[in-house]
Amino acid sequence: MLEFDHDTLAQRVLFGAGKAASNLAAEVERLGADSVMVIAGPAESNLADAVTREITPRLRYSDVAPHVPVEIAEKARAAALEHDIDLVVSIGGGSTTGLAKAIALTTGIPIVAVPTTYAGSEATNVWGMTEASRKTTGVDARVLPTTVIYDVLSLLTLPVELSVASGLNALAHSVDSMWAPRADPINSTLAVEAITALSGGLREIKSDSASQAGHEQTLYGAYLSAVAFASAGSGLHHKICHVLGGAYNLPHAQTHAVVLQYVLEYNGPFAPDAEQRIATAFAADTAVGGLSALRADLDAPRALRDYGLKESDLPEAASLILAAVPASNPRPVTIGSLTSLLHDAWAGSTSGSENSR
Amino acid sequence: MLEFDHDTLAQRVLFGAGKAASNLAAEVERLGADSVMVIAGPAESNLADAVTREITPRLRYSDVAPHVPVEIAEKARAAALEHDIDLVVSIGGGSTTGLAKAIALTTGIPIVAVPTTYAGSEATNVWGMTEASRKTTGVDARVLPTTVIYDVLSLLTLPVELSVASGLNALAHSVDSMWAPRADPINSTLAVEAITALSGGLREIKSDSASQAGHEQTLYGAYLSAVAFASAGSGLHHKICHVLGGAYNLPHAQTHAVVLQYVLEYNGPFAPDAEQRIATAFAADTAVGGLSALRADLDAPRALRDYGLKESDLPEAASLILAAVPASNPRPVTIGSLTSLLHDAWAGSTSGSENSR
Repeated sequence: MLEFDHDTLAQRVLFGAGKAASNLAAEVERLGADSVMVIAGPAESNLADAVTREITPRLRYSDVAPHVPVEIAEKARAAALEHDIDLVVSIGGGSTTGLAKAIALTTGIPIVAVPTTYAGSEATNVWGMTEASRKTTGVDARVLPTTVIYDVLSLLTLPVELSVASGLNALAHSVDSMWAPRADPINSTLAVEAITALSGGLREIKSDSASQAGHEQTLYGAYLSAVAFASAGSGLHHKICHVLGGAYNLPHAQTHAVVLQYVLEYNGPFAPDAEQRIATAFAADTAVGGLSALRADLDAPRALRDYGLKESDLPEAASLILAAVPASNPRPVTIGSLTSLLHDAWAGSTSGSENSR
Repeated sequence: MLEFDHDTLAQRVLFGAGKAASNLAAEVERLGADSVMVIAGPAESNLADAVTREITPRLRYSDVAPHVPVEIAEKARAAALEHDIDLVVSIGGGSTTGLAKAIALTTGIPIVAVPTTYAGSEATNVWGMTEASRKTTGVDARVLPTTVIYDVLSLLTLPVELSVASGLNALAHSVDSMWAPRADPINSTLAVEAITALSGGLREIKSDSASQAGHEQTLYGAYLSAVAFASAGSGLHHKICHVLGGAYNLPHAQTHAVVLQYVLEYNGPFAPDAEQRIATAFAADTAVGGLSALRADLDAPRALRDYGLKESDLPEAASLILAAVPASNPRPVTIGSLTSLLHDAWAGSTSGSENSR
């Protein structure tokens, strides 16, 4: 029996190598904006010059910080209001998109996003801000960028390690959306296409970090992953990573790259349809085998102990995570099974099998 | 090189057997509507009673006619304005959805659609009306239903021939969207999922016309087909069928069911990626073989001459169609190749191969 509620979010995606400047000019025209605020951190300053060369921004803004601190957001909002801004153009990664979203959240000013990583925030209606090192997140229709302009030329210079880490983070969006709380066949269809694109694209980037085709496939896959994830919500994988990142300060991308393998091993046998579709997307016999081969090809991070997690942290981590496990998870989760999963991820165990838990 | 512009349209889909009434009540509540006009033709009167049993409509309206004649649209608009309607609920097939769209087009009143066929109009922003037997169509954001409520129980009594004809029409939306003017990888992904769902669902319906699973898969596939088609636009197949239907009054669904095979044979060798993806969706070695097997299993219409087209009409039809062939078509189209394609479709030839043209 097929039963689901699915909300498709409206968004325009303009995808083309070397077309960011002309696509941006066309969008500014189409949207009738005449007071544009361009947000780009110092590292993206040259890129922002190039991307905005066909428009005349009212304001260039560079005061961007990771995790969108509230005081940074307040300053940016004030600047937008002071200059009668009617369109925010964000050029950068998750922090830059995040700041644009913080402005949109309180002002309703629309966003055109030009992403420079595979983070995927540009395709979601989720916002996040930090105050006194505590992160608050929420969902609001106003923060979804009206238009996303993808130009692979903005990503060709990304170091291969960053591409791999950011791409595996995108892969986690796809895989986890197969069993997240609002998982449905539409999300799964997009996620499967994303997994195929990401696994092919990341392998190409690994062998040639400047491969245009590799970055195009990865960018396309990262976008679809974010669409699927925004619709499906956070599954077991993201709940685990959220706790590990927050409570033990583990690095975001590496944590995702390690944990995904163990969540897939854990859930796969209890989600045979998802397991089969993920396997097909990897062109592998099993989903776990496909992910495992990809991680080997990419020299992906393999164990959480390499990133500062202590074995003695595991019992506490398990109980923090247990409280957050989604009811939708296809396999029941107990403190024992969770501790075992975390221990395998901590050790980078390759012998972990669902039978031993 | 990957380059595309893609507009995703916002829509909420509530899919569930036996849930139409409760889903409709929840949507009316969520949208804050307090003056609802329910449109349902006489044949859907009992169904409309059941679906609206948890709401209190301001107006029940049944004056529906095929192809939305302008005078019918004007009367319905006047009724909507007279009763201060703030939400139109359409319960029926393409004509009913079409009338709701005609109201929305000039008034902006939002629509909740409860479809009873596989026509797919509910998932598009395309409207159509007829005046003095001339059909006008257009695209407008206001006519896209806000929400679609799919309840397979509304379709279980559809005669098997109608299910097959309507389902093959949906299949044509998917296949043609692989090479239509705005074809892109996102549309193709949805189309491929749709082809898989439709071919499985229609076979189940053929063997058991009341199969709930068969109708669910067909309904899901028809929805995704319409989403892909609305985004990609009309390809060669739809241009051919539009001319044949308009100039020679051929029946809609049967024309689609016949022509699709010949368009696929014609374009397939020049669109190897699409051919491969369609073949995979059919679980067949080739796309043409997969469609051919499905048509055989379904006893689908096989030749246009069975539906009133004369052999002497073919030269004129070819020149009418040639003027409308999209520039995006993967294989060049000449008057000669088009005449040959039409002749094969007219005769129901099974020997037609791309090499003979």
